[in-house]
Amino acid sequence: MEDITQVAGQVTELAYALDTFYFLVCGALVMWMAAGFTMLESGLVRAKNTAEILTKNVGLYSIACIMYMLMGYSIMYPGDYEGGIFQSLSTIGTGLLGSSDNDVATVKAGDAYYSNLSDFFFQVVFVATAMSIVSGAVAERMKLWSFFLFAVILTGFIYPVQGFWKWGSGWLNEGGFLDFAGSGVVHMCGAAAALAGVLLLGARKGKYGPGGQVNAIPGCNLPLAALGTLILWLGWFGFNGGSELKVSDVGEANAVALIFVNTNMAAAGGLVFALLLSRLWFGKADLTMALNGALAGLVAITAEPLTPTPFAATLIGAIGGVLVVASIVTLDKLKIDDPVGAISVHGVVGIWGLIAVCFTNDEASFVWQLIGIVSIFAWVFITSFIVWYVIRLTIGIRVSEEEEYEGVDLSECGLEAYPEFKPAE
Amino acid sequence: MEDITQVAGQVTELAYALDTFYFLVCGALVMWMAAGFTMLESGLVRAKNTAEILTKNVGLYSIACIMYMLMGYSIMYPGDYEGGIFQSLSTIGTGLLGSSDNDVATVKAGDAYYSNLSDFFFQVVFVATAMSIVSGAVAERMKLWSFFLFAVILTGFIYPVQGFWKWGSGWLNEGGFLDFAGSGVVHMCGAAAALAGVLLLGARKGKYGPGGQVNAIPGCNLPLAALGTLILWLGWFGFNGGSELKVSDVGEANAVALIFVNTNMAAAGGLVFALLLSRLWFGKADLTMALNGALAGLVAITAEPLTPTPFAATLIGAIGGVLVVASIVTLDKLKIDDPVGAISVHGVVGIWGLIAVCFTNDEASFVWQLIGIVSIFAWVFITSFIVWYVIRLTIGIRVSEEEEYEGVDLSECGLEAYPEFKPAE
Amino acid sequence: MEDITQVAGQVTELAYALDTFYFLVCGALVMWMAAGFTMLESGLVRAKNTAEILTKNVGLYSIACIMYMLMGYSIMYPGDYEGGIFQSLSTIGTGLLGSSDNDVATVKAGDAYYSNLSDFFFQVVFVATAMSIVSGAVAERMKLWSFFLFAVILTGFIYPVQGFWKWGSGWLNEGGFLDFAGSGVVHMCGAAAALAGVLLLGARKGKYGPGGQVNAIPGCNLPLAALGTLILWLGWFGFNGGSELKVSDVGEANAVALIFVNTNMAAAGGLVFALLLSRLWFGKADLTMALNGALAGLVAITAEPLTPTPFAATLIGAIGGVLVVASIVTLDKLKIDDPVGAISVHGVVGIWGLIAVCFTNDEASFVWQLIGIVSIFAWVFITSFIVWYVIRLTIGIRVSEEEEYEGVDLSECGLEAYPEFKPAE
Repeated sequence: MEDITQVAGQVTELAYALDTFYFLVCGALVMWMAAGFTMLESGLVRAKNTAEILTKNVGLYSIACIMYMLMGYSIMYPGDYEGGIFQSLSTIGTGLLGSSDNDVATVKAGDAYYSNLSDFFFQVVFVATAMSIVSGAVAERMKLWSFFLFAVILTGFIYPVQGFWKWGSGWLNEGGFLDFAGSGVVHMCGAAAALAGVLLLGARKGKYGPGGQVNAIPGCNLPLAALGTLILWLGWFGFNGGSELKVSDVGEANAVALIFVNTNMAAAGGLVFALLLSRLWFGKADLTMALNGALAGLVAITAEPLTPTPFAATLIGAIGGVLVVASIVTLDKLKIDDPVGAISVHGVVGIWGLIAVCFTNDEASFVWQLIGIVSIFAWVFITSFIVWYVIRLTIGIRVSEEEEYEGVDLSECGLEAYPEFKPAE
Repeated sequence: MEDITQVAGQVTELAYALDTFYFLVCGALVMWMAAGFTMLESGLVRAKNTAEILTKNVGLYSIACIMYMLMGYSIMYPGDYEGGIFQSLSTIGTGLLGSSDNDVATVKAGDAYYSNLSDFFFQVVFVATAMSIVSGAVAERMKLWSFFLFAVILTGFIYPVQGFWKWGSGWLNEGGFLDFAGSGVVHMCGAAAALAGVLLLGARKGKYGPGGQVNAIPGCNLPLAALGTLILWLGWFGFNGGSELKVSDVGEANAVALIFVNTNMAAAGGLVFALLLSRLWFGKADLTMALNGALAGLVAITAEPLTPTPFAATLIGAIGGVLVVASIVTLDKLKIDDPVGAISVHGVVGIWGLIAVCFTNDEASFVWQLIGIVSIFAWVFITSFIVWYVIRLTIGIRVSEEEEYEGVDLSECGLEAYPEFKPAE
Repeated sequence: MEDITQVAGQVTELAYALDTFYFLVCGALVMWMAAGFTMLESGLVRAKNTAEILTKNVGLYSIACIMYMLMGYSIMYPGDYEGGIFQSLSTIGTGLLGSSDNDVATVKAGDAYYSNLSDFFFQVVFVATAMSIVSGAVAERMKLWSFFLFAVILTGFIYPVQGFWKWGSGWLNEGGFLDFAGSGVVHMCGAAAALAGVLLLGARKGKYGPGGQVNAIPGCNLPLAALGTLILWLGWFGFNGGSELKVSDVGEANAVALIFVNTNMAAAGGLVFALLLSRLWFGKADLTMALNGALAGLVAITAEPLTPTPFAATLIGAIGGVLVVASIVTLDKLKIDDPVGAISVHGVVGIWGLIAVCFTNDEASFVWQLIGIVSIFAWVFITSFIVWYVIRLTIGIRVSEEEEYEGVDLSECGLEAYPEFKPAE
C-alpha cells in the first residue's frame, strides 16, 4: 500500500521536473533566436560584409554566455547566487553554478519549483538576445574587436544592472513597472545601446547623399533574412512562453497557451499591416518591411502577452507593424543609419509595447511605464555612449574608408562569405 | 497529512499541464513548417522570383492565422467556440479566444484534458500548412495580391468547411472516413486548391516547347531547398505527433513515440526510393526528386501513422516516394506546370496515404476512404476554381509577360532577392 | 473518494509520459542535427560540389534510419529487441518495432520508465549523426553511390558493434569506460571512419602544392556554414540532454538542466578560444575556425557534461577550441585533406573529451578511458579501412579527374546547386 505522503512528494517532484523541462525547452528556443539574428543580419547586409556579421553574431553569443556566467547573473539576481567573479575566484563555478541545485527537501517544502540551473540557462540566452540587437545596427563599418569589447561590458554589466531593477526585484519592480518578457529590459535595452553606437559611428559611406537624399543599400540575400525572421518568430514562443516561468497546473498551462497564441497573432498582425502600409506608401509589397513588421509585432506583445485577447494581440502587433515602417523612414530622414532596422524594431516598438500594457492590464500604471522606459533607456544609452566613446578614443570603433569600401570581411576575418559568386558591378 | 482528493486533483492538473505543453511544443514545430515551405520554395524557383515567393509565404502564414481566428475556427469547430466574426463584433476575442479557458473544476471533472487555446494554436498552424502548399505550385507567374485574396478565402472558409466534415465531427467522420493527421484534410486540400489555380493560370513561359518538349527550369538555390525539406521533416513530428492530442498516460505516450518513429521511417523510405528510382530512370541521383521523395513519405504516413509497424511505415513512405517521381513526370506530360511539385507531393501522395490506411488499420473502410477523397477533393477544387476564376475576371491572376520575363520580384515587391549575385547569362 | 493505489499508478504513468515526451523532444533535436551537418558541409564546399553533398547528407540520414531499424538496433541492444533482420523475415517490424511497447503493468512494476520506441527514435538519430561526420571529410571527390554503400555498412554493422561495447552493456561498459553521450561512441567513431576513407581517397586536386604548400579552398557559402553550426549547437542540447535518459524527479531534472548549461558553456568557450587563437596565429578572426571551435567545445563536453561545473565546462570547451585549430593546421601539414575539418573536430577533440572525463568525474579511470579510445578507434578504423578498400577495388571510390574538375554535382546528380550564380573566374 502506498503512503500518501510519498505519493504527494512524487507529485511535487514531477511538477518540478515538468517546469524545469518546460523552462529548458523555452531556453533552447531562445538560444535558437541567435541563429535568427545571425541569418536576418547576414541577409540584410552586403556580401562583402557578411562573414564579419556572422563572426560578430556567433562571437557575441559566446561572449554573452561567458560574461553572464562570470558576472552578469550575480549582478542581476544577487540574492540567489553565489558563483560570480565577485566572490573569490575559487568559488567561480561553485554555488549555484556548481553542482549544487535544489535538493528534494527544498522542493517538497515548496521553496523551489524549477531547477535554478534551468533559470540560469533561460536568463543567459536572454542577455545574448539583447546583445544581438546591437550587431545589426552597427553593421558594415564597425571594427570587430571593438564590438566584442563592448559586448563584454554590455552583457557583463550594463544589461544586468537594469535587469536587476525589474526582474531582480529592484526599484522598478517595486514601483510597479510592468514588463512581462522584456520589451524594455531586453529589446529597448539592446536598441538603446545600438543607438549610442550608431551615433558615434556615423552612417555608412554613400548611404546619405548631399541633398538629403537617402540611398537604399539592399541586403544581399533575402531568403536568409526571411529565414532569420521565421527563426525569431519560433524562438519567441520560448521567449514569451518561458517568461511565465511555470506550466504545471491548470491556470499556468492556460496562461502559457494564451501567450503562445498571442505571440503568434501579434507577429501576424505586424506583418500584414507593415506589408499593407508599404504597399500603400511605396507602391510595392516590400519584403524587408514585412519581415520587420513581424518582428515589430513580436516586440510589441512582449511586454504583456498574457492579458490581451488574441484579437487585441493582433491589433497591438499591427500597430507595431505600422510604427516600424514609419520609424525606419524617419530614422533615415534623421540620417541615423541602421542597416537592419534594429533600433526601430526593438527600440521604438519596444516603447510602444511597454505603453500598450496599460490598455489591457488593469494593474499597469502609465506613470510607472514611463518611468521604466525613461530610466532603462537613460541608463543603457548613457553608459553605452560612454563605453563606445572610450573605445573610440582608444582602439577606435570605425574601420578605415578603404576597408569599408573593400568590405570588412577581408580586413577583419581574412576571408569572403561568398568567394565564388561574382557581384554584379 | 495530505488529503488524497487534493493529491488526485494535483495529478489531474499536472496531466492537463503536460498535455497542454506537449500540444504547444507540437504546434510550435508545425509553425516551423512555415519556414520549411518558405525555404523549399525559395530554393526551387529562379532568383528573379525569389523575393516574391518569400513575401507570399510569410504573408499567407499571417493571413491564415488572422482569418482562422476571425472565422475559420468557428466554422470548423462550431460547438466549442464562441469567438468568431459570426457572433456580434463585440465578442470577437472573447469566448474561447478571450481570456476564458478551462477552469480547474472543468478539468477535475474530466471534461477537458488540455487548454483550448493550445488546441487553437495547433489548429491555426495546420491551416497555414494547407495554404503553404498552394504558393509553390503557382509560383513565378501569379499576382501577389490575387494570391493573398485567395488565401483569405481558403483559410477563412474553404479549408474550415471540409475540416469540419472530418475533425469537427461532421458527416465524413460520422461515416467512418479516417484521416489521422490530414493527408486529405490538409495536404490533398492544399493540392486541390493549387491544381485549380494552376489550371486557370497556365504554365510558365518557356516551360513547354512546341513539340511536347518539357524544358527544365532549375531552382536557383538547392541548399535552401534541402534545408526546407529538413525543416518540414522536423516539423512533421509535431504535425503527426501532436495529432494524437494526448501524451499523459502509458498508452498515449507509447502511441506518440510510435508516431514519431513511423513519421521518420516513412520519410526515410520515401527519400531512398525516390533517389533509387531517379537513378534508374534518369541515370542521375536527382536531389530534387530525393527531397520530394522524403516529403512524399511524410504525406503518405500522415493519414495513419499509428497502426503501421515501422517497417510497414517505411514501405508506405517508399511507395509514396516512387509515386511522386512518376507523378511529377506525368504532370509535365499533361502540361500542368507545378514548379515545386506540390500537387504531386501533397495531392497524389495524399490520396495514396488515405488509401494506405486500409492496409494497416482494421477499422478503415475502403469505401469511406474513397468517399472522403472524392468529397474533399471536389469541394476544395470546385470552390477554389470558382474563387480563382472570379479573381481572374476581376483583378486578374497572372502577371504580364514582361513582368514574368523580368521576374515578379521587381514588379510586385520592388526589390531583388540577390541583388549582388550576377545571374549567369 | 479516490483510491491511493490508483492515484499512485497515475503518478507513475505520468512520469513515464513525461520521460517519453522529453526523450522524443531530445530525439527531434538530434534529428535536427542532420540539417546542421547538411548546412555546415554545403557551406564549406565549393559551389560545384554542393548538390552532391546535399544529396549525400539527406541520403545517409535515410539509410542510417533504415539500416539501424533492420540490423543496427538489434546488434547494439541485443537483449531488448526482437525485431531485427536476424530473426526470420516475418518478424521484421514486430517485436519492439511493432505495435507492442511497454504495457501499463510493466510500467507500474517499475520495469520501464519510458517508451521503448522513444528510445529507438533517440538511438536512430545518433547513428545518423555518426555517419554525417564522414560525409564532410570525403567531400568534393568521392563517388556518391560508393559513399552510400559505406553508409549501409557503417550504420548497419560497424557503429552498432562498438555501440554495444559501451551502451549495450558490453565489455567496455563493464570495465569502466565512461562516455556519457558519445564523444567516443559517436564522434570519434565517425572521425575514425572518415580518416580511413580520406587516407584511401587522397587529397583533392590542387589542395597541396609541390613544395609542401597548402592551398586554401574556401567554402562557397559561409552563412550556411554558420547556420549549420548554430543548428548543431541547438541540436546538441538534445544530444547531451537526452542522454540523461530521465527527467521526472528532482535529481534528474537538475541533472538535465546542468547538462544544458554545460553544453552551452563548452560551445561558447570553444568558439571564443578558437577565435582568439586564430586572431593571434593568423592575424585574422577566422570565421570557419570559430565555427569549428564551437563544435569542438560541444564534442569535448559530450563525454561528460554532468560532473563539471559550468566554469569547468567552459574550460573543457576552450581547450577543445584550441586543439581543433592546431589539429586542422597539423592535418594539412600531413596532407590529410579534410575539407570541413571533421576529423579534427570529432576525432582529435573527441579523444580530448574522453580524457577530460578524468578531471571532473571521480569514477573515471584513465586506463579505461585509454582502452576505450584505442579499442573504438581501432575497431572503426580497421573495419572501415577494409570496407573502403573493398569498395575501391570493386566499384571505385574516387571520381575521375575530369569529373572532379567539373564538379561532382553534374556527374553524380545531373544538376547544379546554384545554376544562376556565375562563379568568379
